[in-house]
Amino acid sequence: MGRAMRICFIGDSFVSGAFDDECLGWAGRICARARKRGHDLSPYNLGIRGETSAQIARRWRAEAEPRQSPQQEGRLVFEFGVNDAREVNGKPQLTSEQSLTSAREILSAAAQWKPTLMSGPPCGCDDPRNGRVKALSAELAKLCAGLNVPYFDSYTPLIASSTWMPCLKGVDGTHPSAAGYAEWAKLIDEWPAWRDWLP
Amino acid sequence: MGRAMRICFIGDSFVSGAFDDECLGWAGRICARARKRGHDLSPYNLGIRGETSAQIARRWRAEAEPRQSPQQEGRLVFEFGVNDAREVNGKPQLTSEQSLTSAREILSAAAQWKPTLMSGPPCGCDDPRNGRVKALSAELAKLCAGLNVPYFDSYTPLIASSTWMPCLKGVDGTHPSAAGYAEWAKLIDEWPAWRDWLP
Repeated sequence: MGRAMRICFIGDSFVSGAFDDECLGWAGRICARARKRGHDLSPYNLGIRGETSAQIARRWRAEAEPRQSPQQEGRLVFEFGVNDAREVNGKPQLTSEQSLTSAREILSAAAQWKPTLMSGPPCGCDDPRNGRVKALSAELAKLCAGLNVPYFDSYTPLIASSTWMPCLKGVDGTHPSAAGYAEWAKLIDEWPAWRDWLP
Repeated sequence: MGRAMRICFIGDSFVSGAFDDECLGWAGRICARARKRGHDLSPYNLGIRGETSAQIARRWRAEAEPRQSPQQEGRLVFEFGVNDAREVNGKPQLTSEQSLTSAREILSAAAQWKPTLMSGPPCGCDDPRNGRVKALSAELAKLCAGLNVPYFDSYTPLIASSTWMPCLKGVDGTHPSAAGYAEWAKLIDEWPAWRDWLP
């Protein structure tokens, strides 16, 4: 049996597993795998559909705090960014500068409080948005490096995946079906920073 | 395709699916079944291990509000009670009167806000606690009837189940393994009040 751990997964619709007919998302899948490796893991899914980094900044701490326990180690995993880059009324919801301000606020407070990981935002079927997501992901990687928060670049392996892109098209062009979540979960499950927590 | 719906599942460790190696709990399982019947359902799991009804009363509304959307109908499903009846330092954490005060506060506000269902607390391997849980479940059923909130008596079918009780013993005497969560999910999935929402 491994370490007893409570992990809060905090972010957007990809965290909550929107459109996944298995109702697991990538977070549920990597936790089920960790439990099957013998870890006493209690996951809390705090993804909310549609949220930008600015919205996540306002609520994540108040939600993560009551989910801690003296009996288990507390950990945090974040994923956000696509809603920042998403156009509403003809312009992205947040500028790159606004995104990075929110991300810095979130991740610096998180990393001072609990061991923290971040997964970057994934690619979708909207090319102009993809350009913004890719650029934001590169900026988030730099920010995380400066804060000593391990960062998983989701964009690069998913845009090259033969599973991810086709399965988005059968949903809404943004979210994957269960097969896509399984693909993303497989990548994160093999990430050394995750395995360092849950070998 | 059925109605687009966001459902917040609010409660304790049984809602969060503690000790389930599949990381679904009963809530994840009934939602996966509903999605497979064609419903555009987005679940949010707001179960927290160890919480009493008094703790849930303090946080549920602030967590459920940012999970609403004008694009989908909002619904609420509650389950709590075992931690109220659990002895800590030789006495139950809440008296029956305290439990019912919290439950009335939660459920009357919930039902005035969104369509609401409640599942009652399950039985475990601690006989004195079971007696208190059974009595609380009967009181919760009466309270819900007065508020027009459909109430699912979990205690009665689970204590008679040939799956539930044996699988608790392999975990901690309180929580089930995946097989127990699947059993409970099957019962709620067949509950007419749930099927009325998601046929």
